[in-house]
Amino acid sequence: MNAPKILSTPGTDAYAYPLLIRHLLANIADQSDAEIVSGDLRLSYRDFVERVTRLATLLAARGVRAGDTVAVMDWDSHRYLECYFAIPMMGAVLQTVNVRLSPEQIDFTLRQSGASFLLHHSDFAPLCDHLLPGLPQIGDVIVMNATEEAEGYEALIAATGPDFTFGDFDENAIATTFHTTGTTGDPKQVFFTHRQLVLHTITLAATLANQPDGQGLRRSNIYMPMTPMFHVHAWGMPYAATMLGVKQVYPGRYDPATLLTLKLREGVDFSHCVPTILRMLLDANATNRESLAPWTIVIGGSALPTALAQEAEAAGITTLVGYGMSETGPVVALARGASDDATDRCRAGYPVALVQARIDTANGGELLLRAPWLTQGYATQADSDALWADGWLHTGDIAAVDEDGALRIVDRLKDVIKTGGEWVSSVELEDLLVAQPGVAEAAVIAIPDEKWGERPVAFLVAALDAQPLQRDQICAQLQLHVAAGRLSRYAIPERLLLIDALPRTSVGKIDKKKLRTMVA
Amino acid sequence: MNAPKILSTPGTDAYAYPLLIRHLLANIADQSDAEIVSGDLRLSYRDFVERVTRLATLLAARGVRAGDTVAVMDWDSHRYLECYFAIPMMGAVLQTVNVRLSPEQIDFTLRQSGASFLLHHSDFAPLCDHLLPGLPQIGDVIVMNATEEAEGYEALIAATGPDFTFGDFDENAIATTFHTTGTTGDPKQVFFTHRQLVLHTITLAATLANQPDGQGLRRSNIYMPMTPMFHVHAWGMPYAATMLGVKQVYPGRYDPATLLTLKLREGVDFSHCVPTILRMLLDANATNRESLAPWTIVIGGSALPTALAQEAEAAGITTLVGYGMSETGPVVALARGASDDATDRCRAGYPVALVQARIDTANGGELLLRAPWLTQGYATQADSDALWADGWLHTGDIAAVDEDGALRIVDRLKDVIKTGGEWVSSVELEDLLVAQPGVAEAAVIAIPDEKWGERPVAFLVAALDAQPLQRDQICAQLQLHVAAGRLSRYAIPERLLLIDALPRTSVGKIDKKKLRTMVA
Repeated sequence: MNAPKILSTPGTDAYAYPLLIRHLLANIADQSDAEIVSGDLRLSYRDFVERVTRLATLLAARGVRAGDTVAVMDWDSHRYLECYFAIPMMGAVLQTVNVRLSPEQIDFTLRQSGASFLLHHSDFAPLCDHLLPGLPQIGDVIVMNATEEAEGYEALIAATGPDFTFGDFDENAIATTFHTTGTTGDPKQVFFTHRQLVLHTITLAATLANQPDGQGLRRSNIYMPMTPMFHVHAWGMPYAATMLGVKQVYPGRYDPATLLTLKLREGVDFSHCVPTILRMLLDANATNRESLAPWTIVIGGSALPTALAQEAEAAGITTLVGYGMSETGPVVALARGASDDATDRCRAGYPVALVQARIDTANGGELLLRAPWLTQGYATQADSDALWADGWLHTGDIAAVDEDGALRIVDRLKDVIKTGGEWVSSVELEDLLVAQPGVAEAAVIAIPDEKWGERPVAFLVAALDAQPLQRDQICAQLQLHVAAGRLSRYAIPERLLLIDALPRTSVGKIDKKKLRTMVA
Repeated sequence: MNAPKILSTPGTDAYAYPLLIRHLLANIADQSDAEIVSGDLRLSYRDFVERVTRLATLLAARGVRAGDTVAVMDWDSHRYLECYFAIPMMGAVLQTVNVRLSPEQIDFTLRQSGASFLLHHSDFAPLCDHLLPGLPQIGDVIVMNATEEAEGYEALIAATGPDFTFGDFDENAIATTFHTTGTTGDPKQVFFTHRQLVLHTITLAATLANQPDGQGLRRSNIYMPMTPMFHVHAWGMPYAATMLGVKQVYPGRYDPATLLTLKLREGVDFSHCVPTILRMLLDANATNRESLAPWTIVIGGSALPTALAQEAEAAGITTLVGYGMSETGPVVALARGASDDATDRCRAGYPVALVQARIDTANGGELLLRAPWLTQGYATQADSDALWADGWLHTGDIAAVDEDGALRIVDRLKDVIKTGGEWVSSVELEDLLVAQPGVAEAAVIAIPDEKWGERPVAFLVAALDAQPLQRDQICAQLQLHVAAGRLSRYAIPERLLLIDALPRTSVGKIDKKKLRTMVA
C-alpha cells in the first residue's frame, strides 16, 4: 500500500529498451555526412558503423565472448574508437590500459582486470613481449597498426565480413574498466556500465550543446581529443561526438606540432586537455604565433591558472573548465561565461543536469556527488565503502558554491595547507605565482611544521625565455596580495624552490607525492 | 556462461540512482536566474521549486499517497507546471485530462484512470458539478484559480509549508497518464514512467540544443507552449525547458491575440503548435502585420503545408516539423535545414538519438519505432498487442526515408487513397491544394468506388478575403502538376466540396472520420 504504481501494462518486458552503447549508433550512419579522420584514413559514419560490426565479427571469430575482458593499448585513433563501441556492444568489457604507467603497474592492471585478449599498438610490442609470458590468461593478441601485415588490424578487418548481430542485454552489464592513477598506492580499478555511459553521453551532449555560442560542441563543430582515450573514455567526448555525428579527428600519439597541424588542416574547433598540454601547445605555437581561433578547449584534470587561460585567449583559444574525475565518468560540471571573461570559465563550473552536488561542511568543505553515471565502487569493499560513505561519492576535493550556482574547487583535501589556524589553498597560491612575470608553472605543497602545524613550500619553473627568477621579487608580489586582502599572510612560503620541470603523473597531473618526497 | 558481466561491485544498491522526475530539478534553482511567467505571476526558479514542495505537502495533507492518481483540468499555467513535477515526485500519478473531449468522454477518462483527487480550473466547475456525483472515487477537489478564496490553489499553497521530503523509488513507477484522442472508438489510456520521461527530457534537450542556430531551444531562449499541457506533456517541452532553466511563459487558455501579445511583451522566441494554431496566429497578425521574428515554432500533430510554412516565414516565424504521437512521448524526430529552406523543414525530420526507425515495406511502408520512452501499451491487452506487434511500435503512418536520413510522412495508413492500382497520398494532395491562391485549408479523404477501388474527395476552406473558389481553376492547376510528373493522374478529385470550416478533433487535428460521415 502507498507505494508508487509500477508499470505493469501487458507485455512490458517485450517492449523493454535497455540503455546500451549500441543504441548511440541507432540512426547516425543515415544522418551524418561528416568524416572520421585518423592518420591517412578518412571514414564516413557508414564506414565506421560497418567497421564496428567487422571488428566484433573478428573478435568473436578469435574467441571473444560476452563477459570476457578485452584490453587495448593504443594512441588515439579510429581503431580505439571502434573498440569503444564494438567490444561493449558484444557484451564484452573494454579495458583501456593506461600506457603511461610503469611496466609493473601495467602488469598489475592487466592482471586485476582478468583480460583474456589484447589489442596493442606496435609501440608497445617490446613491453608486451616482456609482460605476456607472465600473463597466460591473455590467450590472443592483435597488433593494431601493422598495416603491412596480413595479421594486422586493418588487414584482418578488411578480410572479415560485417556479420555480427548485436543483441540486447541487461543495461547494467559492465561496458568499460580502467584504473585510476591516483598519486598514492596501487592504481584502483573502476567500472562503468552501459547504462552509465549512455546517460553520461546524452547528458554531456545536452550540456555541451547548451553552452553559450563558441563554448560548446554542436553538430557543426569539428572535434579532436587531446586527453588520451585510455583515460576516462577521453572524458566521454568521443561517445558524445559519435552520437552527434560530428567530424572527428584522431591525432595518434600526442605531439604538439602534430596537434597544431591537424587543428589547422582539418579545421578542428573543439578539444579538451589538461593544462600541461595547453602549455605545450602555446609553446609550440610561440614561433609562428598563428591565430588558433576558433578553438574551444575544455580544461580539466587540474586547476586552470587564470594567467594560462589569458595567454590561450590571446592565441585565439577559448578555454573553459570541466570538472570530474576517473570515478565520475567523468563530467559532472562545466564552466560557461561571458565570452570575454576567462576568469569565470576558470571555475569548475555548473553541475550538469541530474547531478546533485553537496558541500560537506563537517569535513572541511569536501564536495560530495550523486549522479547516474558515477562508478559504483572499486574492486575492493573497503575502498568502495570509503568512496561512497553515506551514499554520496566523496571527491576528495574542497569546493565552494558561488552565488550563481557554479562550483569553485578550492583545493584537494590532501593538498590544502593548514597553517597558523588557517586553511590556505595550494591552488590559489599556485594561481598567484603563475601570474607573475617569468613563472611558467608553479606547485605548492605543505610540509609539517612544529610551530605552525604546516607551512607551504613552492616549486617554480621559469618561462622559456625569462630572466632568472628572483625569490625576493616574487615574495614582494605576494605581499601585495596580502596587503590587498586577497591572500592570508600565513600563505607566503619561506621556501621557493626553482626546478627545471614539475614531476607529472601518467595523465599529466602534477605529482605532489613526488614533490613531498623531494622536500623530505 | 558467455553472458555479459553484470555490475556487482560491493554496495551497488546503496549507490543506485533511479531516473526520477525530481532529479530534473537537481541543481536548477541555484543556476537559473530566469523567470516563469503566468498571468500576473513572475516566479524565480527558486520560488518554483519551493512551490512544487508546497504543493506536494498540501496534497499529502489532503490524503494523496504514492500510487494514487491525481487528475488535473487546467489551461496552461504555472500551476499545471507545478503539477507536472509535484504529483509524480510524490510517487503519485498525474492524469492530464483532455478538457476538449465531450463530457461523456471526460467522464470515461476520469473513470478509467481511477483518479481519487481532482484539481480543476473554475471554467470547468459546471462540468465537474455535473460529473462528480457519478464519480464517488474522486474524494477531494481543489479549484485551481480561485485566487480570492481561502480554499483556492494560491491561498492553499501560500498557507502550506515546504515540508514534503521527496524520496527515491523505482524508476519504472508510472508518472503520468492520459488518453489518446484518436478519431476512432473510445479514447485509449497511455502511461509514461519516470524513467521514460527523464530519458525523453534529456534526449529532447540534447536534440533541440543541437539544432542549427535559430531552429532550436537553448538556455538563452524564451519558451511559451502552444500545444496544451493536457496533450502529451505539451510535447515534453515544459520538462526540457525547466531542466534547462530557461525563461518560460504560460499563456492560459489559448487565444491568438493573447499569444501574440505575450510573444511580443515577453520576448518569446521558441514555441510549438499544430498547424491550425499557426493559421490562427497568422490571421490574428494579418491586420497589424507585425514582424514576429525571432520565433521558432515546432509544428506537429498533422502535416505542415509548405504554403503555410512560407507564409509563416514571411511573418518572421521559422517553422520546423517535429514528429511523434501520444503513444511516443511524443518526440521521435525533428526537422532541421538551411535557414532559408522551409521545404526541408516541412518533412518529419531526423530521428533523434536512441530512436530506431524502420519502414515496414510489407505493410505499405508503415513506420515502426523503438525508443526508450514509448508507451509500453494501453489499458487493454488486445490494443497493446496490436500497437507492439513484433516488438516494434506501429505508428499507423506511412513514411519514407530520404537520402539524408530524414523521414517523410507520406500519409496516415488509413487515409491513403488506393485508386486505379496506385496509392495517392492525401497529405500530398492537400499540400498542392493549399498552395493555390484563395485556399486556406484543405482535407482529402477516400470514398469507396466500384470501378477504381477508391476515389479522393477534397474539402476546401476559402481564405478570409479571397474571391470565391472556382473548382475548374483548381482542377486545372492540379493538371499542371500531373503534366509535370509531380502527381498521379488518378489523384485529381471529381468532387471538390467547399466548406466553412474543417471539423477538428479535440487536439486540433482534422477529423477525417467526420468528413467521411458527411460524404456518406
